[in-house]
Amino acid sequence: MSAFNQYSSVEKLKQLAEKPIDLSKNGALTPKRLEEMMVESLNLKLCYGTERVNEKVMEALFELAKEANVHEKMASMQNGEVINKIEGFESENRMVLHTAMRDFFDRAAEGEEAKQAAALAYAEMEKLKAFFDGLGKDEFTDLIQVGIGGSELGPKAIYLALEAFSKPGKRVHFISNVDPDDAANVIRKVPLNKTLVVIVSKSGTTLETLTNEELIRKKFQEEGLSPTNHFLAVTGKGSPMDNPEKYRKSFYIWDYVGGRYSATSMVGCVMLAFALGMEKLLEFLRGANSMDKVALSEDPRKNLPLLSALLGIWNHNFLNLPTTAIIPYSQAMSRFPAHLQQCDMESNGKRIDRHGNEVDFWTGPIIWGEVGTNGQHSFYQLIHQGTITVPVEFIGFAENQFQEDSPFKETTSQEKLLANLFAQSIGLATGEKSDNPNKFFPGNRPNRVLLAKKCDPYTMGALLSYYENKVAFQGFIWDINSFDQEGVQLGKVLANKIIDQFAKKSQGEEYGKEFPLGAFYIDQLKGL
Amino acid sequence: MSAFNQYSSVEKLKQLAEKPIDLSKNGALTPKRLEEMMVESLNLKLCYGTERVNEKVMEALFELAKEANVHEKMASMQNGEVINKIEGFESENRMVLHTAMRDFFDRAAEGEEAKQAAALAYAEMEKLKAFFDGLGKDEFTDLIQVGIGGSELGPKAIYLALEAFSKPGKRVHFISNVDPDDAANVIRKVPLNKTLVVIVSKSGTTLETLTNEELIRKKFQEEGLSPTNHFLAVTGKGSPMDNPEKYRKSFYIWDYVGGRYSATSMVGCVMLAFALGMEKLLEFLRGANSMDKVALSEDPRKNLPLLSALLGIWNHNFLNLPTTAIIPYSQAMSRFPAHLQQCDMESNGKRIDRHGNEVDFWTGPIIWGEVGTNGQHSFYQLIHQGTITVPVEFIGFAENQFQEDSPFKETTSQEKLLANLFAQSIGLATGEKSDNPNKFFPGNRPNRVLLAKKCDPYTMGALLSYYENKVAFQGFIWDINSFDQEGVQLGKVLANKIIDQFAKKSQGEEYGKEFPLGAFYIDQLKGL
Repeated sequence: MSAFNQYSSVEKLKQLAEKPIDLSKNGALTPKRLEEMMVESLNLKLCYGTERVNEKVMEALFELAKEANVHEKMASMQNGEVINKIEGFESENRMVLHTAMRDFFDRAAEGEEAKQAAALAYAEMEKLKAFFDGLGKDEFTDLIQVGIGGSELGPKAIYLALEAFSKPGKRVHFISNVDPDDAANVIRKVPLNKTLVVIVSKSGTTLETLTNEELIRKKFQEEGLSPTNHFLAVTGKGSPMDNPEKYRKSFYIWDYVGGRYSATSMVGCVMLAFALGMEKLLEFLRGANSMDKVALSEDPRKNLPLLSALLGIWNHNFLNLPTTAIIPYSQAMSRFPAHLQQCDMESNGKRIDRHGNEVDFWTGPIIWGEVGTNGQHSFYQLIHQGTITVPVEFIGFAENQFQEDSPFKETTSQEKLLANLFAQSIGLATGEKSDNPNKFFPGNRPNRVLLAKKCDPYTMGALLSYYENKVAFQGFIWDINSFDQEGVQLGKVLANKIIDQFAKKSQGEEYGKEFPLGAFYIDQLKGL
Repeated sequence: MSAFNQYSSVEKLKQLAEKPIDLSKNGALTPKRLEEMMVESLNLKLCYGTERVNEKVMEALFELAKEANVHEKMASMQNGEVINKIEGFESENRMVLHTAMRDFFDRAAEGEEAKQAAALAYAEMEKLKAFFDGLGKDEFTDLIQVGIGGSELGPKAIYLALEAFSKPGKRVHFISNVDPDDAANVIRKVPLNKTLVVIVSKSGTTLETLTNEELIRKKFQEEGLSPTNHFLAVTGKGSPMDNPEKYRKSFYIWDYVGGRYSATSMVGCVMLAFALGMEKLLEFLRGANSMDKVALSEDPRKNLPLLSALLGIWNHNFLNLPTTAIIPYSQAMSRFPAHLQQCDMESNGKRIDRHGNEVDFWTGPIIWGEVGTNGQHSFYQLIHQGTITVPVEFIGFAENQFQEDSPFKETTSQEKLLANLFAQSIGLATGEKSDNPNKFFPGNRPNRVLLAKKCDPYTMGALLSYYENKVAFQGFIWDINSFDQEGVQLGKVLANKIIDQFAKKSQGEEYGKEFPLGAFYIDQLKGL
């Protein structure tokens, strides 16, 4: 039996889950309840009165956190212990130090390794500042970031979230997909002579990224431009990409920063420094660092990421809800759910614990979502009246970014946006009775609301860290390794086999025998 | 008991689901199996050998289709019978005739109502052609479509999918969210004097759309431009928006075309005619119409949408898998999963059958997805090794759109893209054994592959109709009404209450008493 199912709190929670609070009952959801079920930290308010919890459940969840030693584990992580491993089996055996990438304000971590990592990260920040200081003001108007997975999702989500704060005349584009249409569509829109290209690959060997780099280098050469003047590398020191003959400058990342946790490393910072400038970039990092410190707090009522992790585990492991929707009521956050999808599902979509035993409970949920109010006009039908209950995490902001808002029928657009968010949170919890079964809303759809003042650099940093640490806490509680991704290897191996088959085919060689299943699909392309 | 659970085929399928085929067994997945489990229609190939089905399961699924009378129901729908209703209760009581919007090639439907609807749709197409013929060649370079839900998701997904085919110098933008940052971000990018604005709302009363319209009209007025010259309405005849004093032209839609099914009506066509021109628009519609006819086929082995619906029901209702991921290996299809999320979840996220009885089985799954190969670097860890099995629907194309592809290490990017798709399909099904539990892939992750030649207008039309009809078939089998959306009403009612509270607050009036839960959230904004 896994550690998780041996905790006494887990037994208690299973019993409590047999009869969770009925929020659809008249008078169950009151302002008093909402008031009592709200915590605040760094000017973020987490309102969870619309979750199906009561004080007993919360106490048992806090006990679970204690039994699973989450505070020690979080401190170990931030201090640089080797926690990315599976005991007794070949595994990555690495530290997990993305938090060190922003730990040069009021230091959070104590460990020597963490301090050293923070010092290295700070040195890259200084290199970065010097690099941009050395450029002409309008030498580059556009930046293309080429990377995939964590080298794209987090950086792009954050860029879009903060685009409103970007310097005039600076534009950022992303190319990730090996689909050649992705690159073609970007390249035809930018002035190459004024474009910086940032190639991001820790190993320096990512297939999609190298393929796209090749394609873009060719375009520069066709226009008589020297790629070396335009191309930057973000990669591991000594990787095949750490090459001054090919890149104007290399910025470094390390093996203790996982791709999905790399947005605050040079993977995100080069692009953000270009778009926002150093000052706003530092605000962003400071926000993340501040939330990392919140995550170290031992009081679960002050530790927002932990509280969120526990509520998620209640919904997932005890109320048996397989997915979680993340719905920011902010257009700027349009790609944030996609980033969190990676961060969460790649971290916690695991089937064994840290000792190599197959788990006997659900690990990470399926994470999905779109921005509100748009989602209301899309999948909310199922959320309100479907047969599969979806817990929802709402994110809302008191103010908008552009300040271009005007009252229409006595309220601003921002107020309408927030009114919708609040209405959904309440309506999902309470439901509504009706004699017409089609107008009957069962309610008891658990959800919580995270409120902040404004989607600005500091807040985005804090939000990013809030979710990163939530994911880590859930992994700690489940006793799994959230920091490797062996599950993506099989696809790579098989893809390379089929790529070889394509190559053989193009040279008229026999390609079917070695991997007949691959050949079947290749042959299907013929008749189309 | 619901009709669904009374079918003898359902009983049979439940038994078969106790021991589905084990695709991870050595030799279970063979080229021969793949060959036998492939159907083709309109140059689309559906390969389903990687689903956990065998001939017995397929026979039982075909029997289910027969027991549920799906062929008659599909014909009824396309012929214009009033199928959008709940027997015995107040409901919309409407026909469902989105298929008529494209039924003016080789006619599919027989019913008089459907013929009349098609004639009306054709008249709008002629109006549309005359309108664009009457414009100066460069009178408008940009078009902003303002609409939300079905007025945005489908049109935007299709525009992005076909952007490669758009006329030089024509750009389309979308504003949907009531978030004022959404509109501000678009408006600052377009030359207003050369911009057409298409306001889309069937009722002419959609809050988000009217709010954004007001904001944009103001911008035009500030620049000394007359909105009437630039604004078009897509709305119901006689709606508050059908007003020649405010709009240069109105194009009509009807109550028998649901928002999520409206992409082939004027909701999508005005924008697509601007971007692609009439000829390519007609190809797109012809593709949809052709697949509608395929959906009328009584042979389930030729009826692609039905086959897909049945496989989905096997995974969902019998293998008990709560979600479905849709993953196109094509960057151009980046928003297609979001459109299908709406189309499916708003249609089939229901808890009662057509007679008002609460169902005793799962209706519509949670639909989510991103493009490949990007997803591989994100959530595939969970798909391969997580504890919740996710059925996947892959979409692939033999050729890319831009033709800007070059071999790198002997294969093209398109070949690499396809190699990855094929590899994932195979790897998810077969898995891989290993003594290292972290490198062990259990396999038996059901998936299917839809292959087409190229993401072009005709194919996109066919794909759109394929999914629309798949959703309809699943609704027919579950005996639910897939065409209303009462589940979105509660949120609207509560949002209006809170909007009133914001208005009262801004005028210094008491706003707490009437709806204290709303007031609680409003008050939380203060301290931020």
